[in-house]
Parts: sequence; C-alpha cells; structure tokens
Amino acid sequence: MTGNTPTPPADAPAGGVRTLDDLPIREELRGQSPYGAPQLDVPVRLNTNENPHPLPPELVARIAERVAGAARDLNRYPDRDAVELRAALADYLGRTCGLSLGTDRVWAANGSNEVLQQLLQAFGGPGRTALGFEPSYSMHALLARGTGTGWVSGPRDAGDFTIDLPAAERAIAEHRPHVVFVCSPNNPTGTAVAAETVLALHDAAQRARSGPGEHGALVIVDEAYGEFSHRPSLLPLIEGRPRLVISRTMSKAFGAAGLRLGYLAAHPAVVDAVQLVRLPYHLSAVTQATALAALEHTDTLLGYVEQLKAERDRLVAELRAIGCEVTDSDANFVQFGRFDGPGGAHAAWRFLLEQGVLVRDNGVPGRLRVTTGTPEENDAFLDAVRELMKENDR
Amino acid sequence: MTGNTPTPPADAPAGGVRTLDDLPIREELRGQSPYGAPQLDVPVRLNTNENPHPLPPELVARIAERVAGAARDLNRYPDRDAVELRAALADYLGRTCGLSLGTDRVWAANGSNEVLQQLLQAFGGPGRTALGFEPSYSMHALLARGTGTGWVSGPRDAGDFTIDLPAAERAIAEHRPHVVFVCSPNNPTGTAVAAETVLALHDAAQRARSGPGEHGALVIVDEAYGEFSHRPSLLPLIEGRPRLVISRTMSKAFGAAGLRLGYLAAHPAVVDAVQLVRLPYHLSAVTQATALAALEHTDTLLGYVEQLKAERDRLVAELRAIGCEVTDSDANFVQFGRFDGPGGAHAAWRFLLEQGVLVRDNGVPGRLRVTTGTPEENDAFLDAVRELMKENDR
Repeated sequence: MTGNTPTPPADAPAGGVRTLDDLPIREELRGQSPYGAPQLDVPVRLNTNENPHPLPPELVARIAERVAGAARDLNRYPDRDAVELRAALADYLGRTCGLSLGTDRVWAANGSNEVLQQLLQAFGGPGRTALGFEPSYSMHALLARGTGTGWVSGPRDAGDFTIDLPAAERAIAEHRPHVVFVCSPNNPTGTAVAAETVLALHDAAQRARSGPGEHGALVIVDEAYGEFSHRPSLLPLIEGRPRLVISRTMSKAFGAAGLRLGYLAAHPAVVDAVQLVRLPYHLSAVTQATALAALEHTDTLLGYVEQLKAERDRLVAELRAIGCEVTDSDANFVQFGRFDGPGGAHAAWRFLLEQGVLVRDNGVPGRLRVTTGTPEENDAFLDAVRELMKENDR
Repeated sequence: MTGNTPTPPADAPAGGVRTLDDLPIREELRGQSPYGAPQLDVPVRLNTNENPHPLPPELVARIAERVAGAARDLNRYPDRDAVELRAALADYLGRTCGLSLGTDRVWAANGSNEVLQQLLQAFGGPGRTALGFEPSYSMHALLARGTGTGWVSGPRDAGDFTIDLPAAERAIAEHRPHVVFVCSPNNPTGTAVAAETVLALHDAAQRARSGPGEHGALVIVDEAYGEFSHRPSLLPLIEGRPRLVISRTMSKAFGAAGLRLGYLAAHPAVVDAVQLVRLPYHLSAVTQATALAALEHTDTLLGYVEQLKAERDRLVAELRAIGCEVTDSDANFVQFGRFDGPGGAHAAWRFLLEQGVLVRDNGVPGRLRVTTGTPEENDAFLDAVRELMKENDR
C-alpha cells in the first residue's frame, strides 16, 4: 500500500474551505451544534443519568469470555438478525414486565436512539409528522429532524409536567401525526405515565388517522427508565395493539451506557418494518456477546436498581425537606427547582458546578435535573443544594 | 416490576394487523424485502467477501483484555468522539496510505454503511441527489433511498466495467448531483479506479455545482477493499480537496466483519458536518476497545492480506485458464463469467451451489462474484467451476 502514491496538485480549485459552512451541507444544518451534554472534569458528575454502579467483577469476566468467543469468528459477519440476543431480551421482558413474548416481537439496535431512528425511517420521514409532549427526551425531536420527519411539540401540564390528556387529544386530532412519542417515565421531568393515559393517546392517534387509505399511527412508548418506576411496565399494552411499540435500553437499569444496546417490543409486523430500513449487520458480534453476558446477570443488576430507587426516593424527600419544588420521579433522576431568580436555572447550575457537582440544565425554565448517584455523591449534591438555597435566600 | 400490570382489553379497535402492509409504513417501503445475501448452510461459503483468516489467538486474547478494561466502566457512556480510536486509525492511514493525518480528519462509525449514511444525512437528503456508477456496491443506492436522497445510476463501460470518463462527466453535468460515489476497488466488479479518473470526476462534480449559493459537491471514494488493490490508496487525493472523502472499513483487511467498524478520512469540516447528524454515543465502548486491539496487530493482519492477494491473483489466472471471462480484480473477490446460456448467471450460481460452493449473484448479467477464501476453499470453487464449464459445453 506504500509507494507510487499519486501526487495531488498543490491546491485544487475547490479548496479554501475553512468551516463546514463552506461545504455543501444541508441548509437546515448550517449553524447547528452537535447534541450532547458538556463533558466537564468535575468530582461529582450527575448529569447524564448513568448508573453509578460499575458492573460486578464476575460479569466483567463473563463479558471478556463471551467477547473472546465472538472474536474467534470476528472475520465473519455477525448474526444479521441477532436472534439469540432477541430471545434473551424477550425472556427478560417476560420475567419482569408481565408479558410473554416470542423473539419475533423483539428487535435490538445500537442504543434506543438507533431503535427510534429506525422506527422514524419506516413510519415517519419526509411528508410525515411526529408529535411528542415536551419537555421530553430531546433526541425525539432531533431524530425526527434527522429523518426528515416534521415535528409537533405537544402540550404538558405546566405545574406537574404530566400529560394534560384533553389538550393532548386535541393536539393529536389537529395535527394527525403519523408517529406519537410518549416517554414514560418522562425524561427530564421524571414521572411515569398512567396506562389509561397511554391507552387514550393511542386510541386518539388511531382515530385521527382512520380515513380511507390510512393505516393508523404508530405510538412509541419510550421506557428507557422503565425499571426505575413505581408503576409496572406498560409492555402488556402492546397485546392486541399492533401500532403500539415499547422502546427500552440496557444503558440505565443494566448499568451499560457504554454498550449502546436498545431494543423494542411490538407486533411482529413492526419488527418486519424496521428490518426494511436497518443497516445490514448493524449490531456487531461484540455488542451481541456483551449484551448476552449482561443478561445472564440480570438479578444482580436489578438488585442495584432497587438500591438506586431507594436513593432516588431519598433524594426526592430530602430536596423537598430543603425547600425545593420536586417533580414526582419514577426514573433514576430527579427534576428540582424552582430557580426563578436572576440567571434562572442556569445560574443555579453554575453555582452547583462551582461546588464540584455537575447536574443537567435541560432548558426547562426554573428547573434542573440530577441523576441518582452513589450515596456519597448524592450527599455531596444535597450539601451543594443546601448552599445554593442559602445563597438564594440572601 | 412485577404485579399490578394493567390489563389490556381483549382486542383494541386498531387490531387485525397481519403483515406490515397493514401498518402505517412509508408508501415506498410497501412490498420491499430487507437487504442481505441469502444465508445458506453450505460447505464453502464465498459469497459475502469475508476474510477467511480467523484472528490470531494473541489478538483474540488482547481483545478480551481490552474489552474487560472497557467493561469495568461500562456504566458510563463511551467517549462520544472516539478520540483514541480515531488517532489510531489516523496513524494506520499515515503508515500505509502515504498521507499523515490529524485525528480531526478521521471519523469512525458502526461499519462503513453508517459512515456513508451519516454523509448522506449531512450532504444528501430530501431534495438532493446522489450519483453512483453501476453496477457498484448496492448499499449506496439503498442508503440514498433510506435518507430520502434522490439516486442517479451513472454509466460504466459494458466490457471491462471501468468508469467511462466522458460518459460519466456528461452524467454529472446533466444531473448536477450533490454527492458522487466512486467505489475503488469497485464491488462487485473488482477493479480499482485510476487516480486521474477520480480527479476528473471530482472536478466535474465541483464544476456542476459552482453556481451562486452553491458549495460544490461531495465526492465519496469507497475504499472498503483498498488494502487488496494493486494500486496505492487514493487517500492522498484528499489533500487540498475538502469535498473529497475516503471511506474505509476494518471488515475486510482487518478480518473483522463482525466488529462493524468503518471510518472516513477527509477535511476536518467534513468531520464536523457528520457530527451534526451522528447519533450521540453511536460507537460503543466495546467496539472502540476491540478496534483498538485489532489496530495493535496491524502487521500480522496485513500479512494475511498479502496471502489473500496472492490467492486472488491465482483465482483470476486459473479462472482465465479454465476459459472464464474475468474482470481485473484489485479486491478480495473476483467477478467471472460469462454465463449467457439458458438461465444465465443464476443457473450457474445454482449449479455451483449444488456442488457445495456458495458464490454471489449480484444481478450483473452473465456474471458471478466469488470471494477469495482459503487455498482449500478456492480449490473447491475452481473444481466446481470446471464442472460447470463442462456442463455448459455439453
């Protein structure tokens, strides 16, 4: 591969590019910045909803073992349909979420972001519309933009951030979306959605697109934080509802944000549909092997979840005792406020950062979001909030 | 998570779905089938251009070691920008392709499919057009469809399957594509493209989109099989040409199809542009760790490439000696024919399959494609072709 390299001329006529705005990028991307939380070097990082428990050593060893097995065949393409992994995920859902599923009703991809992107490629796209109730997981809107899907920001109750059902039904009837996102527990506000609300939204979405030649609407319930909820999973709702999809991830409850493994459960026809748009061999053999190892250790990992739920409940109680306004949380994070003084939530975020605690400013007026960390991290956070409240009282 | 599961009603009004055509999928997806080679259980599988050399045991051990290291932090998100991996890829390109690069000129994703999808999301998309010279890697057109990008099939010489430059320049001037794909070595035909041809195509593409408010066109050179070529890499051509991108993969030369690691080299502004459309944390920590381990073993793996090149040259020579028409190959596969009798190439494909040898029918009239396997697999393939030629002579 060395030698005989063709020598390029000194500078081609097309040169002179300094920034991406000099390139033929799409007009709507000009001036944009990439998504992502600031990555700052701070003692206590509670900003990206990571699970603070490292994987147990026996699971690390099992991952190494299973990956070594996969690496022996790494010259071959991975199982394109990830059948063994999907069967293990179906088994996990059956044991924890109250609905027994066949492998044909489960699909997996690189993070729930990719799962949701595939759903939008198949059911959204140019000339179609998706609707979500904001504030919610901001990637829903970004994935819509990335797939050319129109985006409608639906309403949420201004006080407790739950979905205001009559207003939501009106928005669905008005905009007739092809795809509806329901995030439960909702990120960044924290509260789970009642099954009755999801059913009503689902039915409203079907009614809105029940005309001649229409085939209803896809309703995606994003349960990325489902295992942390006080309520049971909404998974059983997919039974008899082929246009209702549950999306989940191993990033949070399985403590595997670094793995990038998201999955969905739905009618087999939905799984067929995403297979039309998925990149072939999208899920690597090492990802499949690592996820299978983690699923062998479900009981240990769900034990950590129980500890985190207790810490989360402690955070809510102590923040309220301090005098914060706290949104009910079914997730591994807590939304708190209100910071309505000069500088608003961002000034509060900066004050906490100066105390060595990084939380997330999601742009919700007067509110911040804190991830449940280790007991020590949570104590450090609570101390910093006490300082903040003293400062604000001055 | 168990108990208190909401009980769904027996069947919702939206039920009765039997296939995905009953769902609200995009109209253009109705009736489509997923991309992918048939996966058949056959003794000699030479259909997906995999590298027949398993990874050496010392590399398998190193992968296990690096993945175990990554697994200890798996509860944290991976490095969103994959900086260490991109630096290692830049170093590899510098040592083998004759151009020293900074990390800011290299980007990595889950297979070159995802790299190309990101480029089309940023530079193609609705209202824009991509052009490729067919027959070529069929995913280029499929990725265009998946991203809503218009697709133009450009011409190729009917005899030797090289790019007919005057015809290609006319096609570019006529269709004014925003993105031009050049696959070198071309899949499935096998021949590398001369640097002079790429330069001429690049300049034609810039001329075609040099009007007011236009910013030129992106030219993507897909070098997935670059390491197998008789010609040097086209990488040095990116110097001074910010709209020229080289796309590569670890699937072939690194014997790591199961890893799904593709990458590109280009002007830093192109890397900035794909970061606007990439999914956040798209590349898992285990993928990054595995790729870094493989890059430590570059010399061993490139030794296998030299063996495969010798076998590939033997396949070309022996197929010609048998009486086949063979397209010059710079890849790890060989296009051969012609099968113009009854049933055409597909009948020949079936005959070889009955002999226990699976090759690929890419839909090129009268031609089939065989992947270079182990010497024993290649011998079995050549024996089967001899039988086929005897049969066809009857």
